[in-house]
Amino acid sequence: MVAEELGEFERIRRFFAPLAGPGGLGLLDDAALVDCKAGHRLVVTADAIVAGVHYLPDDPPELVARKLLRVNLSDLAAMGARPLHYVLMTALPAELGPEWLARFAKGLGEDQRRFGIDLLGGDSVSTSGPAVLSLTAFGEVVAGMEIRRNGAKPGDLVWVSGTIGDAFLGLGLLRGSHPDLASEHRGYLIRRFQVPEPRTELGPALCGIARAMIDVSDGLLADLGHICETSEVGASVELDKLPLSHAARVVVDLEPSLRPRLAATGDDYELLFTAPVAASETIAALSSHLNIRITMIGKIEPGAGVRPVAADGQLISVDHTGYRHF
Amino acid sequence: MVAEELGEFERIRRFFAPLAGPGGLGLLDDAALVDCKAGHRLVVTADAIVAGVHYLPDDPPELVARKLLRVNLSDLAAMGARPLHYVLMTALPAELGPEWLARFAKGLGEDQRRFGIDLLGGDSVSTSGPAVLSLTAFGEVVAGMEIRRNGAKPGDLVWVSGTIGDAFLGLGLLRGSHPDLASEHRGYLIRRFQVPEPRTELGPALCGIARAMIDVSDGLLADLGHICETSEVGASVELDKLPLSHAARVVVDLEPSLRPRLAATGDDYELLFTAPVAASETIAALSSHLNIRITMIGKIEPGAGVRPVAADGQLISVDHTGYRHF
Repeated sequence: MVAEELGEFERIRRFFAPLAGPGGLGLLDDAALVDCKAGHRLVVTADAIVAGVHYLPDDPPELVARKLLRVNLSDLAAMGARPLHYVLMTALPAELGPEWLARFAKGLGEDQRRFGIDLLGGDSVSTSGPAVLSLTAFGEVVAGMEIRRNGAKPGDLVWVSGTIGDAFLGLGLLRGSHPDLASEHRGYLIRRFQVPEPRTELGPALCGIARAMIDVSDGLLADLGHICETSEVGASVELDKLPLSHAARVVVDLEPSLRPRLAATGDDYELLFTAPVAASETIAALSSHLNIRITMIGKIEPGAGVRPVAADGQLISVDHTGYRHF
Repeated sequence: MVAEELGEFERIRRFFAPLAGPGGLGLLDDAALVDCKAGHRLVVTADAIVAGVHYLPDDPPELVARKLLRVNLSDLAAMGARPLHYVLMTALPAELGPEWLARFAKGLGEDQRRFGIDLLGGDSVSTSGPAVLSLTAFGEVVAGMEIRRNGAKPGDLVWVSGTIGDAFLGLGLLRGSHPDLASEHRGYLIRRFQVPEPRTELGPALCGIARAMIDVSDGLLADLGHICETSEVGASVELDKLPLSHAARVVVDLEPSLRPRLAATGDDYELLFTAPVAASETIAALSSHLNIRITMIGKIEPGAGVRPVAADGQLISVDHTGYRHF
């Protein structure tokens, strides 16, 4: 009993208190404090991941931590919010001891510095099942400038940041496909799966430009479907315009049947948004200013549903339009 | 795959969307919005519970939901904050189907109305292990009026709301002790364990009165120890003054050795606070106005540590000073 008591406080003191910002009150209080800035809104998002479902139990703990944090930062970016803080809850099996936790906290610490955020608090419990890690992230946006999913209008163009399909191909490599792929491509694609790059600069910069936005987590077509559904519009996506990384093109050249499926894969955590045609030059300037590729891939139409099409407008059938849990 | 996809959205639509407030955006977006009131701070707290550790897997889902919510509301109250919203994360095993979820959501809905709060959003994942439920709760406090643990001063009196030990005795009854206890006492004590009463009115009313506050979750002596440690003071607690419910007194009369142990038991979720002597009349008036028993049980002293004493000032030895997980 005494050892267990020491355990909780010692864990907090050693691993988590160094991650806390001023609002976390040293993780010594019942709750944390967040200052409210006049004219702003707080943006709140939450994600949970389970060992064996969302990551492999022997994945490096630093990478598990960074991915958990980054998928939440991506959700904030998709609302146009600047990230501020997070709350962490861990339910861990007994076999994950101090070494695992130290590495997990190290990953959080690295990304905190990178993204300028801090820990507010949380809870640690034990479970007899697989680890369940959940994180609530906080960002801020000028009130009224938040970008929701429901603002797309017929005539808007559809844009996506970065490249699509890398994470899916990276997971495939981890599972043994294309064992002969050159190591630089292999390393790139696996890293895109393990450590996504949340678009924390681009998201807030799109306030006042994008009419609807989402991050690509279920799959590009499925996520565009979420925008269409809440905006009560349809969309067409020209699959040939899908931005692929050099490494992804190498894999697709080896296995051409993969190409149309990349539009249906998730975990890219790129920003997918719609904007009026008149915003196109501003978007191009933003792309060049932030040094982030932003590609026009389709347009919003009256009606409902997402139509993947070829360059000639012909409908292309795509196997499945997204994956998720439950 | 398709059934699983429908599952997640259908779950959200059926069970959780009806619980969402305006800031939850119908649970249709990447994140939720919280308006910031000028001159206020947001207070954030989080708790996780695991089936088989914090509750029994066959406990009524309504009660599991209400307890999860209430322990978080208690943490907000302990900072002097008024509750506003919450974020819910569930990791559930496959055997907990729609019936369990419907009852869980019903419990949340009842308490939302009771405490005037709403759901912002969250995440649902599946696990092969026991259910892990976690909740992040949001409250607000006028900036600078929050009550922390670190403000206790020598000479302060120590006060506690309600009665202490009921939850511990209720758990004992559930585990088979005192099978002959009259059913009204049995029902009362079990209910105190299953559905704690967070002091959401008293907490904010103590802003400007209490110098340090915590809610009793680890055990009265352990929690007072947390105040002493962060405030860098000591305390004495007169065990005879510990407020017991009528039902608890009946059990203690049957088993007198339980009495001193009640000061070391947790899960009461009463407010434990210190205040200068001059505030005593104000506290008595507040007690009568809110119709909540508030009892003076000890005082803050220079030094360190919590001393349980008898009426004559003699030190009393208490078995253990708190319990917690890990």
